[in-house]
Amino acid sequence: MSLDTTSEIEIIKVATSKIDQVDFETLSFGSVFTDHMLVCDFRNGAWEKPIIKPYEPFLLDPSAKVFHYGQAIFEGMKAYKIEDDSIWLFRPEENYERFNKSAVRMCMPEVPEHVFIDGLKQILQLEKDWIKKGKGNTLYIRPFMIAIGSGVIAQPSTQYRFMIILSPAKAYYSGEVKVLVAEHYSRAANGGIGAAKAAGNYSGQFYPTQLAHNAGFQQVIWTDDATHTKLEEAGTMNVFFRINDTLYTAPTSERILDGVTRKSLIDLARREGINVEIRSVLVSELVDAAKDGSLKEIFGAGTAAVVNPIVGFQYKDVYYELPKMENSFALDLKEKLTNIQYKLAEDTFGWTVEV
Amino acid sequence: MSLDTTSEIEIIKVATSKIDQVDFETLSFGSVFTDHMLVCDFRNGAWEKPIIKPYEPFLLDPSAKVFHYGQAIFEGMKAYKIEDDSIWLFRPEENYERFNKSAVRMCMPEVPEHVFIDGLKQILQLEKDWIKKGKGNTLYIRPFMIAIGSGVIAQPSTQYRFMIILSPAKAYYSGEVKVLVAEHYSRAANGGIGAAKAAGNYSGQFYPTQLAHNAGFQQVIWTDDATHTKLEEAGTMNVFFRINDTLYTAPTSERILDGVTRKSLIDLARREGINVEIRSVLVSELVDAAKDGSLKEIFGAGTAAVVNPIVGFQYKDVYYELPKMENSFALDLKEKLTNIQYKLAEDTFGWTVEV
Ligand SMILES: Cc1ncc(COP(=O)(O)O)c(C=O)c1O
Ligand SMILES: Cc1ncc(COP(=O)(O)O)c(C=O)c1O
Repeated sequence: MSLDTTSEIEIIKVATSKIDQVDFETLSFGSVFTDHMLVCDFRNGAWEKPIIKPYEPFLLDPSAKVFHYGQAIFEGMKAYKIEDDSIWLFRPEENYERFNKSAVRMCMPEVPEHVFIDGLKQILQLEKDWIKKGKGNTLYIRPFMIAIGSGVIAQPSTQYRFMIILSPAKAYYSGEVKVLVAEHYSRAANGGIGAAKAAGNYSGQFYPTQLAHNAGFQQVIWTDDATHTKLEEAGTMNVFFRINDTLYTAPTSERILDGVTRKSLIDLARREGINVEIRSVLVSELVDAAKDGSLKEIFGAGTAAVVNPIVGFQYKDVYYELPKMENSFALDLKEKLTNIQYKLAEDTFGWTVEV
Repeated sequence: MSLDTTSEIEIIKVATSKIDQVDFETLSFGSVFTDHMLVCDFRNGAWEKPIIKPYEPFLLDPSAKVFHYGQAIFEGMKAYKIEDDSIWLFRPEENYERFNKSAVRMCMPEVPEHVFIDGLKQILQLEKDWIKKGKGNTLYIRPFMIAIGSGVIAQPSTQYRFMIILSPAKAYYSGEVKVLVAEHYSRAANGGIGAAKAAGNYSGQFYPTQLAHNAGFQQVIWTDDATHTKLEEAGTMNVFFRINDTLYTAPTSERILDGVTRKSLIDLARREGINVEIRSVLVSELVDAAKDGSLKEIFGAGTAAVVNPIVGFQYKDVYYELPKMENSFALDLKEKLTNIQYKLAEDTFGWTVEV
């Protein structure tokens, strides 16, 4: 693949910012966007010059491949502003690498670093007023790529659009989260695309998640599709189980996304002296541990919510409530991780990158 | 779901047709579109009035859910013009029903019959000059629906767009087709979306299909993702195996699309007195049958190619060539089916519907 690495980024600014119309206290996640977006098209086997320009709708042909064959991938990251007004990213190269892994799996061209990383830094500089200080305030970053070539034949596109859009966000608070353990539906196949942040993985979960909602659960914990005996991950989060004082989380695989939050929490927990075991947890183990009281915590881990404690789970029509922990690993690790992200604690891992 | 069933369809015609610029002899499948498209939006819990208007690109917000979460489904059908200039569809209600089943699985609103079926008939009347007479000439019909609501949060959209676009096509000839039996990659999970014509199912196959292409194969025959021992279907075709004089095809399931061509061929074959068994065929059976000479034919069945004979398959690095059959079930059934579609044979099944 020939990559154009020479380009600077052209910037076209909005005439007037819409920032004054935004109430930063009542933001609903992912619904408000900043003034600009980054756009970079791939045509004739090469990436064109990236451009940062006013956020606005764009035209696509009705036969664009993204509409018919779902050739689309994305990432989710955050930018943080600290006391001295500097802006920081958290392990951005992890998202960049994962994005290109997703690209390969979906038969899309890899995006060059100067477009993804340098482009991101430039648009963040331009939009720095949209990032509010204070723990919990962030700018959610959504890099994505779609197939824009036309033609209703199920073959990879030859044209793609990479974009970065930005959405200011408050701390993600989802209330009490009860989860349903999947007994029938699944999110990923062996040899499928579950490990890619591919668009189709997410809409495939909408219906079973809606059934769960209707039954009073906020999330589904997916199990392996072949046997439904192994706990895998939640819709947009990896999952941790604390049994006695050991933390368990499934190994990443072809079916499970390699989450940045997950791997960071593993490192943090181990640094804290917590025993972490990376292995598949069986549903039966979870039920047994819930019954004998050794199951202390379950929590989700992902960029949006950081750490999402779960209050109970249901499996085969039985609801298991988790104990309220004094000494919660979930809350402790969340605090430690966000302190690093907001530069309130020393970043001994070298995870934070200044913009 | 509240459905508006009162609407007539508004029609805005192009000023000048582009039909004279089209060479109907050298059409590449799915790349040329007629003058008009049908558009119908779903907003505030209801379908709006459908409109037929000039085929043209349309605007979408960068955060449209279809780009990020692949909430998109489609159908594939054909219209045929016969000697007396009448226009016919083949079992359109099957596609309509399947479309709405896909919609339910993808958490999208069902499309009312007056939009899908009546809308289709109206746009076909308008575009009748684009349908050429003669066996092999068809108008390929692509109804599809995409999530147009905005917001980068993985939840179903509240706004959708249903469209019908039309593409004139010649008989689909793909040359000699050699297939690779999947040993590692898969297209669908148990409890997944394989039975839906959901966009994400198709892009998920691009990469493994490209690997197969690079190795000299035109298609992959997918196997069940859990064990890779059962033969399932090809990228956009169901698959039949002839062992001695019996035809085998996998039962449709959550992982396998319920193809209209497949079910029509089963009925036709049975009417011909051919023994058809609907059951999973194991890869090992196929290999054994190839070795002992009882494997006579393999063919794909789908709207685009109708019947696609396969000349050989590879499994675990061994290529098995199929015999050249004098008395091919594939060619015989294809002839019988297309004769019904083009009204050259009596339609005793009542499959054809005049527009
Ligand atoms: C399926 C899935 N699992 C897990 C995660 C968590 O990954 P990360 O921690 O990198 O955000 C995400 C998303 O962000 C996801 O989409
Ligand atoms: C996955 C898949 N299998 C099989 C088929 C064949 O179905 P039909 O005969 O209705 O065209 C199609 C498509 O059309 C398909 O997409």
